Amino acid sequence: MSQHVYKKVELVGSSTKGADDAIRNAIKRASATLKHLDWFEVVETRGHIQDGEVAHYQVTLRVGFRLVD
Amino acid sequence: MSQHVYKKVELVGSSTKGADDAIRNAIKRASATLKHLDWFEVVETRGHIQDGEVAHYQVTLRVGFRLVD
Amino acid sequence: MSQHVYKKVELVGSSTKGADDAIRNAIKRASATLKHLDWFEVVETRGHIQDGEVAHYQVTLRVGFRLVD
Amino acid sequence: MSQHVYKKVELVGSSTKGADDAIRNAIKRASATLKHLDWFEVVETRGHIQDGEVAHYQVTLRVGFRLVD
Amino acid sequence: MSQHVYKKVELVGSSTKGADDAIRNAIKRASATLKHLDWFEVVETRGHIQDGEVAHYQVTLRVGFRLVD
Amino acid sequence: MSQHVYKKVELVGSSTKGADDAIRNAIKRASATLKHLDWFEVVETRGHIQDGEVAHYQVTLRVGFRLVD
Amino acid sequence: MSQHVYKKVELVGSSTKGADDAIRNAIKRASATLKHLDWFEVVETRGHIQDGEVAHYQVTLRVGFRLVD
Amino acid sequence: MSQHVYKKVELVGSSTKGADDAIRNAIKRASATLKHLDWFEVVETRGHIQDGEVAHYQVTLRVGFRLVD
Amino acid sequence: MSQHVYKKVELVGSSTKGADDAIRNAIKRASATLKHLDWFEVVETRGHIQDGEVAHYQVTLRVGFRLVD
Amino acid sequence: MSQHVYKKVELVGSSTKGADDAIRNAIKRASATLKHLDWFEVVETRGHIQDGEVAHYQVTLRVGFRLVD
Amino acid sequence: MSQHVYKKVELVGSSTKGADDAIRNAIKRASATLKHLDWFEVVETRGHIQDGEVAHYQVTLRVGFRLVD
Amino acid sequence: MSQHVYKKVELVGSSTKGADDAIRNAIKRASATLKHLDWFEVVETRGHIQDGEVAHYQVTLRVGFRLVD
Repeated sequence: MSQHVYKKVELVGSSTKGADDAIRNAIKRASATLKHLDWFEVVETRGHIQDGEVAHYQVTLRVGFRLVD
Repeated sequence: MSQHVYKKVELVGSSTKGADDAIRNAIKRASATLKHLDWFEVVETRGHIQDGEVAHYQVTLRVGFRLVD
Repeated sequence: MSQHVYKKVELVGSSTKGADDAIRNAIKRASATLKHLDWFEVVETRGHIQDGEVAHYQVTLRVGFRLVD
Repeated sequence: MSQHVYKKVELVGSSTKGADDAIRNAIKRASATLKHLDWFEVVETRGHIQDGEVAHYQVTLRVGFRLVD
Repeated sequence: MSQHVYKKVELVGSSTKGADDAIRNAIKRASATLKHLDWFEVVETRGHIQDGEVAHYQVTLRVGFRLVD
Repeated sequence: MSQHVYKKVELVGSSTKGADDAIRNAIKRASATLKHLDWFEVVETRGHIQDGEVAHYQVTLRVGFRLVD
Repeated sequence: MSQHVYKKVELVGSSTKGADDAIRNAIKRASATLKHLDWFEVVETRGHIQDGEVAHYQVTLRVGFRLVD
Repeated sequence: MSQHVYKKVELVGSSTKGADDAIRNAIKRASATLKHLDWFEVVETRGHIQDGEVAHYQVTLRVGFRLVD
Repeated sequence: MSQHVYKKVELVGSSTKGADDAIRNAIKRASATLKHLDWFEVVETRGHIQDGEVAHYQVTLRVGFRLVD
Repeated sequence: MSQHVYKKVELVGSSTKGADDAIRNAIKRASATLKHLDWFEVVETRGHIQDGEVAHYQVTLRVGFRLVD
Repeated sequence: MSQHVYKKVELVGSSTKGADDAIRNAIKRASATLKHLDWFEVVETRGHIQDGEVAHYQVTLRVGFRLVD
Repeated sequence: MSQHVYKKVELVGSSTKGADDAIRNAIKRASATLKHLDWFEVVETRGHIQDGEVAHYQVTLRVGFRLVD
């Protein structure tokens, strides 16, 4: 990791299936516009309820990627 | 969300399957006595261990619901 | 839980499948050397990304076990 | 405050005017069903945006009230 | 703890004797109206001062109880 | 909120009038370059003092907006 | 800000009008005895309730001022 | 609590007996030089160990007192 | 404290009497297997309830001890 | 700081020398693409270990810069 | 540390060299007016940027000193 | 990092020179008894003061190492 500099961006992914899938959705979307994605950190897990059932899981995560010189 | 007022209650759901299911169990139970459930926020994830294996996942969540005037 | 004293150790489990499985892996490994494992608390969830996809979920947890007199 | 016992409930008030008014709205609504309200603590301030402008301020607060014996 | 769902309420107990007693007072009061109380977690300890001496200890705690189906 | 992915950016708005206005200023500025702004969360409130009076209120907030596919 | 050293003191201001005014009141009082006040940071917002309405807003803030050599 | 302004100072009291007594010692000492002491908040509890036994309990607390105009 | 290196372990002590005693129990147990215990820091206080009364106080603490070269 | 709006980005700098140098490296890199950098706040300090020695210090920081109208 | 009572004050030191030196500067300044300084705790590290380079490191610290009876 | 499990231990290193050196001292000591040390995270920085000058910097860190199967 020598002299590299990384940047972190904060994203919110969502999924009807669960928290793991919400993370995957956010990472997939991020990789469409950002290169060198390296790691993520979960910041918060929440979700919406409809008709008394979980409608979506939403996961806020920070995604770190290397800045190319 | 105009002039509405919401209340949050803190619940702990559990499941032998995993954290997503523990959340669903808590929401399902809450919807038996509370109406207008709107969102949840995960506060803490823990669990019990038996015979060296995960026995239950337990998720503490705050559940928000609209107060009807 | 009377007069018992418990100790907590901090572990990081990982899994390509998801957070629940990362927890199970850490507990399984801990039970190979520690007895009387009783509960766990999730401290942090993170993971690595490779080729724009989640490569591993990593969960840091504190595991509590009873100290035998 | 001698031997009294207090309970806290968590509410979310909202207002188009600002955070102070969102607090007032939540307290007013709480006082419709709870007696002996004594103090509040702000937990979080957020809000919604519509057409690039603040649409509502939302304040989460804990409200403490005395339990009558 | 299988499939049970628990609820937590936040209480403030007080005592002229000390923090342990303030906890006991809050639990005793809670048990007058709630059944299946199971555990408590201390959130905050504070108190009032009169004439340069501690007048009361006040302990905020979250009390968990099982929801009966 | 289905499968949408959101991004959050952290901004600091300021105002001589008060915290509510500092939030409005930050949102207004953000909407000049970002589309689909959806919500904000207050992170911190501070300010500067000049000649023994409040000169500016400064509010740090995270602003969430939907990423268009 | 070179080699200067600053000190912070923690104050609680209150106001019947709102949080911004409670901050102004605390700063005004502080400036009566302290010189070189430079900035403030809001630590906590709470308040008292009387007859089901907000009676006072109370804001705890840390106020920084430069120590003169 | 109208327009009053309060100041908080941070103290550490200690006692060989326990945490309650460490609080009392700190308050007693504070009242020797400060007037209008009103409340305290426990920030941290720690202690020293000698010969495998608790030697002192140390409690860090913030003490609030009213500033006289 | 010169060039010494310390290690901290996390323990949970319990007692039917109160929090101070729960700390003493944890320290006593720790001193049976660890030497050079130096200080402790309280991390969390909780407890169990039986028949509407406090059954045990449980205190989680970090205990620091010097590593001998 | 009048009516200005600031943005903060989160960066991770690293250095084999120490934390101060890791900060300098992150700021230097940020200034290659961002103008009007104004301040930084350290969020976290960590590092990697190789062959039992510190290989790199890594410092996560938030960097604030003024948005030009 | 027997029955002593300690007070903590919060200071901000700064230095063009680095965080260690900013701490030393704050302590040196504090010792000009306070006696019996005993320990410090770092609360926050930040700094200013000028022309794309670190101009000063600023360290906020709490400094504890014994109150003489 | 596949299926590996890591353990973290909490250490306090100290140094008369500065925080970076205190970290190095703790890591060096840890590597005398632990293998596969991989990373560290700074938890807290404090220190002692003697004769109005910094006597030691003390850094608490969590050190992660891989558990060999």
